[in-house]
Amino acid sequence: MNTNQAAHNLNQSDVASLTLCCVDQVGIIASLANFFAERGLNISRYAEYTDDGQFFSRFEWALNHRWEDETAFATEFDQLANGYKATFEVRFMNRRQSIGLFVSKQAHALIEMLNKVEANYFPNLDIRFIVGNDQSMQRIADRHGVPFFYIATQGDTLQYEKKQLDIIHRYKPDYVGLARYMKVLSANFIGKAGCPIINIHHSFLPSFVGAKPYQMAYDRGVKLIGATSHFVTAELDQGPIIEQDVARVLAGASVQDMIKMGRDIEQKVFARAMLKVLEHKAIVYKNRTIIFD
Amino acid sequence: MNTNQAAHNLNQSDVASLTLCCVDQVGIIASLANFFAERGLNISRYAEYTDDGQFFSRFEWALNHRWEDETAFATEFDQLANGYKATFEVRFMNRRQSIGLFVSKQAHALIEMLNKVEANYFPNLDIRFIVGNDQSMQRIADRHGVPFFYIATQGDTLQYEKKQLDIIHRYKPDYVGLARYMKVLSANFIGKAGCPIINIHHSFLPSFVGAKPYQMAYDRGVKLIGATSHFVTAELDQGPIIEQDVARVLAGASVQDMIKMGRDIEQKVFARAMLKVLEHKAIVYKNRTIIFD
Amino acid sequence: MNTNQAAHNLNQSDVASLTLCCVDQVGIIASLANFFAERGLNISRYAEYTDDGQFFSRFEWALNHRWEDETAFATEFDQLANGYKATFEVRFMNRRQSIGLFVSKQAHALIEMLNKVEANYFPNLDIRFIVGNDQSMQRIADRHGVPFFYIATQGDTLQYEKKQLDIIHRYKPDYVGLARYMKVLSANFIGKAGCPIINIHHSFLPSFVGAKPYQMAYDRGVKLIGATSHFVTAELDQGPIIEQDVARVLAGASVQDMIKMGRDIEQKVFARAMLKVLEHKAIVYKNRTIIFD
Amino acid sequence: MNTNQAAHNLNQSDVASLTLCCVDQVGIIASLANFFAERGLNISRYAEYTDDGQFFSRFEWALNHRWEDETAFATEFDQLANGYKATFEVRFMNRRQSIGLFVSKQAHALIEMLNKVEANYFPNLDIRFIVGNDQSMQRIADRHGVPFFYIATQGDTLQYEKKQLDIIHRYKPDYVGLARYMKVLSANFIGKAGCPIINIHHSFLPSFVGAKPYQMAYDRGVKLIGATSHFVTAELDQGPIIEQDVARVLAGASVQDMIKMGRDIEQKVFARAMLKVLEHKAIVYKNRTIIFD
Repeated sequence: MNTNQAAHNLNQSDVASLTLCCVDQVGIIASLANFFAERGLNISRYAEYTDDGQFFSRFEWALNHRWEDETAFATEFDQLANGYKATFEVRFMNRRQSIGLFVSKQAHALIEMLNKVEANYFPNLDIRFIVGNDQSMQRIADRHGVPFFYIATQGDTLQYEKKQLDIIHRYKPDYVGLARYMKVLSANFIGKAGCPIINIHHSFLPSFVGAKPYQMAYDRGVKLIGATSHFVTAELDQGPIIEQDVARVLAGASVQDMIKMGRDIEQKVFARAMLKVLEHKAIVYKNRTIIFD
Repeated sequence: MNTNQAAHNLNQSDVASLTLCCVDQVGIIASLANFFAERGLNISRYAEYTDDGQFFSRFEWALNHRWEDETAFATEFDQLANGYKATFEVRFMNRRQSIGLFVSKQAHALIEMLNKVEANYFPNLDIRFIVGNDQSMQRIADRHGVPFFYIATQGDTLQYEKKQLDIIHRYKPDYVGLARYMKVLSANFIGKAGCPIINIHHSFLPSFVGAKPYQMAYDRGVKLIGATSHFVTAELDQGPIIEQDVARVLAGASVQDMIKMGRDIEQKVFARAMLKVLEHKAIVYKNRTIIFD
Repeated sequence: MNTNQAAHNLNQSDVASLTLCCVDQVGIIASLANFFAERGLNISRYAEYTDDGQFFSRFEWALNHRWEDETAFATEFDQLANGYKATFEVRFMNRRQSIGLFVSKQAHALIEMLNKVEANYFPNLDIRFIVGNDQSMQRIADRHGVPFFYIATQGDTLQYEKKQLDIIHRYKPDYVGLARYMKVLSANFIGKAGCPIINIHHSFLPSFVGAKPYQMAYDRGVKLIGATSHFVTAELDQGPIIEQDVARVLAGASVQDMIKMGRDIEQKVFARAMLKVLEHKAIVYKNRTIIFD
Repeated sequence: MNTNQAAHNLNQSDVASLTLCCVDQVGIIASLANFFAERGLNISRYAEYTDDGQFFSRFEWALNHRWEDETAFATEFDQLANGYKATFEVRFMNRRQSIGLFVSKQAHALIEMLNKVEANYFPNLDIRFIVGNDQSMQRIADRHGVPFFYIATQGDTLQYEKKQLDIIHRYKPDYVGLARYMKVLSANFIGKAGCPIINIHHSFLPSFVGAKPYQMAYDRGVKLIGATSHFVTAELDQGPIIEQDVARVLAGASVQDMIKMGRDIEQKVFARAMLKVLEHKAIVYKNRTIIFD
């Protein structure tokens, strides 16, 4: 374990993390902690939850030069994990991560991501590409020097998704983020993307699934509106929720007022969800996420 | 118009209010304001909204002795209202208001109401009776000196609702509040109650309608849980929403943890909704409420 | 009065507003409403507060061609206002408003403003110039096509403030916004700026006045951190507050963690405060603001 | 480690917890976890923070019959702790905890505590006594069957504090809670109480220390008001903060409106702070608290 001050003098890139999930059992924390202690590793953060008979934990420690990369660590850790039939994932933060973003006509969630990447809000992140079905996004991509691909989404889904998949497969991002991309992805697309896909939906799910959530919220007369960021699964707006937030609807607010104030919630929730994922603080279990602080 | 300080030296019981709803049109504020000015009335608060082509407004002024009661005022105001085909409601706060409460096994929303009535949180309110389907509530009712009626809710709905309606008709409360009363009311009951019924539902509607919302929230993996207070209509949990709020779910929270933290939200939302109704600050229009600050 | 739907089909630029402040007295709403009714104006929004013996009100209506500009309206309204010894301000939203922004090394509040102007979050707003004491801001200004002036703030205050004032006097913005500009303005500067100045302070005022609020917040062990946007007066961080918000500090958060999460609150609060000012919804009275929804 | 479901089938009284604080060092988690593993103990919850070079951790496990009481556990654990020069505290939740409450004229925080104790919001808690300087609280104490002691607080501080201390020494509560008790405690009292004292202050500290925080908040024009619960130290309102929260001030709110809405925040924050303390989830370090979820 390291001191907080030391930890914060480190760059984020000097940190490694391990998340692990297995059936809960006696002695597991001790086994894991011993693994790190025996190798002289400074655990700077640790948390665990037990839920539904499962044990979920996350370790964070200062990187050292014992292992060249994540694969080397995983090889050494594998035997311990096997003993517990555990699934685990290791992340070395000195490895740059990458995302690709999809967008339609509304730029706010995209712009939030572009600016937060520039401001080093995320650890070591590159935006590899932007795919859009509206040419107005070209200008924004250019301004930040990110390749933009205009792919029209009229006509045959299979056909335009093929073009989108080609880009994903060329750039191989760690994640795809749907920054208010307003087309439903086919199960085929999701299966072939080769990486997790994260969406921002403009309602407090499970309320108001689908295309016109603010109109639905207005019609139902709700007093708070919200946004939900979730992993994309084949069923529309039903994937594991990563982050949500809400804001109060002012008396007399119109649908347009809701849309305007909703944008701030959407982009904030999307960025916070991406941060959790990129900091390696979100585990998916069944249709839920376990989130670490 | 009165000064704020003067207004706050007045007891709440020295205030009157008028809410009005009609098709929006030119000159209506002037007409209404002239009605008050001509009679030398001090308007201490005024607000209006226009929505869906309708005009919603609320006036508040210091009571004087020009009118004996609400009926006298209404008679004098009626001609002006008719000219605009407006519906209106006048409330003299020196008239005590009354509610009856229904409860099941969980006491928290009931206790919140009992204590807030004693603390003068509500203007001039009496709790006339408590109806419960669990005898454990007797002790709480006794402590606050409120008549308690145990009515079992097994068996024939028509029969036990008949007994409940008898109590409502005997005490004639201005409102009935369902303080975590866990039986669905029949359309017959709602029609015959003779007063508005206000429910607290333990979810952020329209998510998680029905009996086990916390379990549903847990299963869906939402990151915020909420509560909703609404007017009761024949369709379950579909009535006009008066107030909602949410709280963040801690990582690792179980259904039981959600239920526990949910109680605080429920009772708070229920009390705030009752306050809005009792202060005459909620207008129902279609399936929504217009709420005034 | 206009319908909500009509109002929202109007551009924001088709709206006018009047704010008014005077000693509270009987009949004033009627007088004001009559002024509008006699001229056939559609009041689409109205609110009033009384506080400290004062009457504060705000009218909003659809612009028509009766008056060429704000001055013409003011001339016609002046007599009525004089009768009440009222101060008032009229705003025609078809007139473009303008701001100048000051910034230091941290770009987040500046970027938020630049993007929100492009996204039409504010009504009809131009950013006339950016003044900075760090050359790294040039690139951001260029990207959005806004003139940037690098003015070093070492040495004699009077001297560098003279250069800053020259720019303000050349561009004549309606407001100056301090987007995390980290130098204290002299009383001389404030007096000569010729327009209101709005600051974002990175704490929940009145807590933590001055230069290192996050360190102070950490040392005091507060459980929420906040940000405050206020009009600038000669006394540091003591001007009338326009908007504030807070966020919860996670257990184990370092000063750096607070600074990072604080940025989101700061830029959000600053943008919301600027919106209130630009929509003509903030009245200053004594050392407080009266804010309209 | 136990499953979540099992953990929640357990009564709260079947759980034990250990909090520990020492200089941060390598291998400490492993040592601690081994202590539990070697004794076959099921750790159901664990969290740690490092801050300011210190290591703070909290273990929770299902009680078993190995140790008769906390002292027996502490004796066995002492050697390990000594090796790390650690301070620690063990709590067996099958031991009932107790508090005494002080109150003045305003009953809301007291009533919240009384009701939440009855509702089993707190683990195994008894309210031993209520001390008040206003006789109106007698009735509320009687209703809940808690001994009430009226002690006037005019005149010589030493003298009335002597009477208060006598009651504390007779009942020996684990904690004293100041439920809106409006007298400043002397350093002598605090020193002799023999247990931690927890206060609810009606402002968002460090803003508005002292007696009239809502008036100060109104005068300063803040847009959010808050409440703070903290451990009491000799310096007024300066002790380690346990919990805080805020609520938005509505436009046009008077001091009286703030006081009314403030009550809900105060009682909620006080109860949440007491819960953290009673669940053994608050460690004091320097003038801050480390809070565990």
